Amino acid sequence: MPAYTAPIRDMQFLLHEVLNIATAGVPGYDELEPDFTGAVLEAAGKVASEVLAPLNRSGDAEGCRLENGIVRTPKGFKAAFAAMKEGGWTALDSDPEFGGQGMPYLMGTAVGEIFVSANMAFNMYQGLTHGAVSAIEAHGSPEQKATYLPPMIACDWTGTMNLTEPHCGTDLGLMRTRAEPQPDGSYRITGEKIFISAGEHDLAENIIHLVLAKAPGGGEGTRGVSLFIVPKFLVNPDGSLGPRNAVSAGKIEHKMGIHGNATCVMNYDGATGYLLGDLHKGMRAMFTMMNEARLGVGLQGYAVAEAAYQNAVIYAKDRLQGRAVTGAANPTGPADPLIVHPDIRRTLMDQKSFVEGARAFTFWGASLIDRSRRQGDAGAEALISLLTPVLKGFLTDKGFETAVSAQQVWGGHGYIEDNGMAQFVRDARIAMIYEGANGVQALDLVGRKLAADGGKPVMAFFDLVKSFVKEHEADAGLKAEFLGPLKAASKDLQAAAMIFLEKAATDPNGALSGASDFLHMFGHTCLGLMWAQMAVAAQTALTEGRGDPAFLNAKIVTGRHYMARHLPATALHLARIQAGGDTVMALAPEAF
Amino acid sequence: MPAYTAPIRDMQFLLHEVLNIATAGVPGYDELEPDFTGAVLEAAGKVASEVLAPLNRSGDAEGCRLENGIVRTPKGFKAAFAAMKEGGWTALDSDPEFGGQGMPYLMGTAVGEIFVSANMAFNMYQGLTHGAVSAIEAHGSPEQKATYLPPMIACDWTGTMNLTEPHCGTDLGLMRTRAEPQPDGSYRITGEKIFISAGEHDLAENIIHLVLAKAPGGGEGTRGVSLFIVPKFLVNPDGSLGPRNAVSAGKIEHKMGIHGNATCVMNYDGATGYLLGDLHKGMRAMFTMMNEARLGVGLQGYAVAEAAYQNAVIYAKDRLQGRAVTGAANPTGPADPLIVHPDIRRTLMDQKSFVEGARAFTFWGASLIDRSRRQGDAGAEALISLLTPVLKGFLTDKGFETAVSAQQVWGGHGYIEDNGMAQFVRDARIAMIYEGANGVQALDLVGRKLAADGGKPVMAFFDLVKSFVKEHEADAGLKAEFLGPLKAASKDLQAAAMIFLEKAATDPNGALSGASDFLHMFGHTCLGLMWAQMAVAAQTALTEGRGDPAFLNAKIVTGRHYMARHLPATALHLARIQAGGDTVMALAPEAF
Repeated sequence: MPAYTAPIRDMQFLLHEVLNIATAGVPGYDELEPDFTGAVLEAAGKVASEVLAPLNRSGDAEGCRLENGIVRTPKGFKAAFAAMKEGGWTALDSDPEFGGQGMPYLMGTAVGEIFVSANMAFNMYQGLTHGAVSAIEAHGSPEQKATYLPPMIACDWTGTMNLTEPHCGTDLGLMRTRAEPQPDGSYRITGEKIFISAGEHDLAENIIHLVLAKAPGGGEGTRGVSLFIVPKFLVNPDGSLGPRNAVSAGKIEHKMGIHGNATCVMNYDGATGYLLGDLHKGMRAMFTMMNEARLGVGLQGYAVAEAAYQNAVIYAKDRLQGRAVTGAANPTGPADPLIVHPDIRRTLMDQKSFVEGARAFTFWGASLIDRSRRQGDAGAEALISLLTPVLKGFLTDKGFETAVSAQQVWGGHGYIEDNGMAQFVRDARIAMIYEGANGVQALDLVGRKLAADGGKPVMAFFDLVKSFVKEHEADAGLKAEFLGPLKAASKDLQAAAMIFLEKAATDPNGALSGASDFLHMFGHTCLGLMWAQMAVAAQTALTEGRGDPAFLNAKIVTGRHYMARHLPATALHLARIQAGGDTVMALAPEAF
Repeated sequence: MPAYTAPIRDMQFLLHEVLNIATAGVPGYDELEPDFTGAVLEAAGKVASEVLAPLNRSGDAEGCRLENGIVRTPKGFKAAFAAMKEGGWTALDSDPEFGGQGMPYLMGTAVGEIFVSANMAFNMYQGLTHGAVSAIEAHGSPEQKATYLPPMIACDWTGTMNLTEPHCGTDLGLMRTRAEPQPDGSYRITGEKIFISAGEHDLAENIIHLVLAKAPGGGEGTRGVSLFIVPKFLVNPDGSLGPRNAVSAGKIEHKMGIHGNATCVMNYDGATGYLLGDLHKGMRAMFTMMNEARLGVGLQGYAVAEAAYQNAVIYAKDRLQGRAVTGAANPTGPADPLIVHPDIRRTLMDQKSFVEGARAFTFWGASLIDRSRRQGDAGAEALISLLTPVLKGFLTDKGFETAVSAQQVWGGHGYIEDNGMAQFVRDARIAMIYEGANGVQALDLVGRKLAADGGKPVMAFFDLVKSFVKEHEADAGLKAEFLGPLKAASKDLQAAAMIFLEKAATDPNGALSGASDFLHMFGHTCLGLMWAQMAVAAQTALTEGRGDPAFLNAKIVTGRHYMARHLPATALHLARIQAGGDTVMALAPEAF
């Protein structure tokens, strides 16, 4: 069974040496002393290793079952969910007014990574609830907040998001689910929703569905869409549970992965729903949650990769095969461990440098969300809005690739399900698809975010890179190994951005043909910036005598690996973007 | 359920316009008239679409079961296997002396692709038999050939390969299975072998296991290894089946994919075995089969990708979502089909240009094997030996990537097992691992093949590129879009080859750190060469008025796509190789 150990030292390094949260000036960060964050992360790591990780393989093998309308989660999930609630883990960064602990989103992100690494399918039950809580926090009436938030933050009730229908996912304007207004102000919701994660299960007393549906008078397409609260059990005025609502799970999907999470077809047969936010502004309400939700999916991408990487390392140190090319490393044994072989090390360094860079990128993204929410920092909000599709698309594409590489280290044993490496690959695969498939993320990036506010956010990003480079240019070693590659990548990215801005009106097909490449080169540049920042932080800590020198030196080497071997990918992506849409659009559909 | 249609027009184009087999001068090729090959491929396509493809999903869902030592294959496999035998498909390119049809290996390869695309797991039962047949053809005594080949070529008996043991796969010197000589000249084989594809099943009367084991007196490591024939049922002198041998399946592995094929743990408990080939020369005997076996696995990589691509195209034409950015393409419908969107087309073109290039590469490789076998062409043999790790490693890495991209086109529906896209990904995954994991292929390429015979084979490859470029340089269009990129890629590859030759002795770790990158840049260059050749062939056919202009023009556009968007990857791989092994080897194992 795969092992998992929370990467606490790396997280502490990010929080206190790179993001310097103690001096960041974000309300709430000042309480996050190193001892405190260390204790929280240690405690989360203990739950992850001892409670969640042991259920990952078994949950996958057993899956969820639908019996007479009731969904049974895998053995052990109930007890583990109770343990999560009792530990207060579901309420970590929620509003104290409704029972939350009020910690910054950054802290919730760090803890979230630990739980996702240990058991992605399990963690989705609370993760989706968190999303629904955010929606109600942002758009609910005072009564709705008072009714739903306390039990949802406690995870006595869980939440879902209902967008997709059999014939439409990305194009929600085609939606058929209807909401008819009732005399009492409520709505009758009728329709079929699919791919509803945690749509039905046995972990909570009630399930609060957030459902997109079309109410009369809203016009065509997405303009007519509103968002509704549809509880599984209606809630009495005193907060107790009333009658069962006309919503039910029609089917559990048989998926490639995340078997421990019940993905349901949900049937709404005139179910009672309550408008959440403004009528016909449902899409806007959904979008306000998207930065957070998409960052959460990007996190899944690298968090699963982290777990896979850890187990690739264990195997590479343990499995004996062949001899080091420079002479036996384990002369008394029958062979050397895999880790002596350069190609194995190469892939482990690729994995390590991606995961650590991705963690830095995600933590930075979370800190931007905190700045936006807690300080009303409009620049931070614009920047995270720009970076959100990059976080989601790049980290899930590369996270999957990393899980595949980790599986490869195990050779044939990686293909055997009992060993758990295949599950990491199957689980990581969904993150590239849901919460907006990565092609849609790329379109969002080049079609919407790039030109937003006259291009100010993307210029702010380039300025950030430029001023970082300028600030540290005096350091010759840093310049050669970090700043040079970062400047080159940033230059490639700027050249690509110019192409998009020029082509947007004259050759939109040509521009959009390069959307995924742009997303990827943006991702590489962000990780390049993260690695340069981490190298500076590690060097500073070394100079000032803080931390473990072996860890800090390894950090610098790992960064050099990423800069030398992965950042140059921006040139390839730029070449593709320069190639334009000619060959992409030339063929008639029947030629495919 | 996924559909499959054999790509016969593309295969005919390769055989008759690119490889020009009618005038190639290879014995046996002269019988392969276009009408004949067309009829064979049509017939194979019919079996694939009507018999094999319909069993692909069901075979995956049902899997194989071990009950009281007997393995049951999925429903329908028995009848399908009988149909394959009756159609003579198992004997297509085998020796007529033992009941084969004696067609060239190239033809067996084309037909093999069709069967693998339709049902990879099913086709392994006969595919592995083919490998065992080749081993007995190459190393068997006249008696062994007479006894085993006719029923194996007819697939009344099937074959297996037994190399791997629980503690060793790549490093076979660690092998523990023993062979004790008996007074009658036979051996008693004792040991445990794992990952034995088709190790036990209900499709054949007998199973002929080829087993590597250590016989006394052979010395340490792989030097002591010999190859043995171990039949499930011993064979009487008259060819009838005798008593059951002491070999049995102890377990069926629960794998990520290829569920329809029984992957067994095989226990040899003093089983009777017969030496195949020379004593203590078992590794050599295995290696003689490897070019063919590895080409077959490379074929699996792109053949599964072809099936996945076909179904991505079907979905992209069918699924309505959004509107074309340049105006509605389906104005009377509620939305446009996915295929109007540039990012969807971009991925479909990526898939198409890989699969068609991979097919050309594989067919070329098969023709080199024919030249080597049927003409004793030493140059062809040296070249295919060099290219074998590239065919295996590059086509399976990229084939998997392509299957993932095809699945992505389906969005959330691609993650649902019922739709079959996930299976393509799960099935394709194994091809990167077995028959030598791709990292081992890369080591074989840079550690053994590159410097073989003083580097003559690799120089022959570069000469081939050079003379092709020279021959066609007068064509300005071709020069700009095909020859220029090909020259650039070839130059990158040569620069990398020089680095390896220089570093091999002085910095072996540095060299080997770039092995996988070298394999990939070699693969890109080969596909670049294939595309340039296909462009010339298509242009020639267009000029001379042969074939369907729409098909031929699409061929040229698809080639331009590959040259513009994928061939430039060689520069990235070269940059990584130039980065050397410094960061790869720097960390202590405990730093991972």
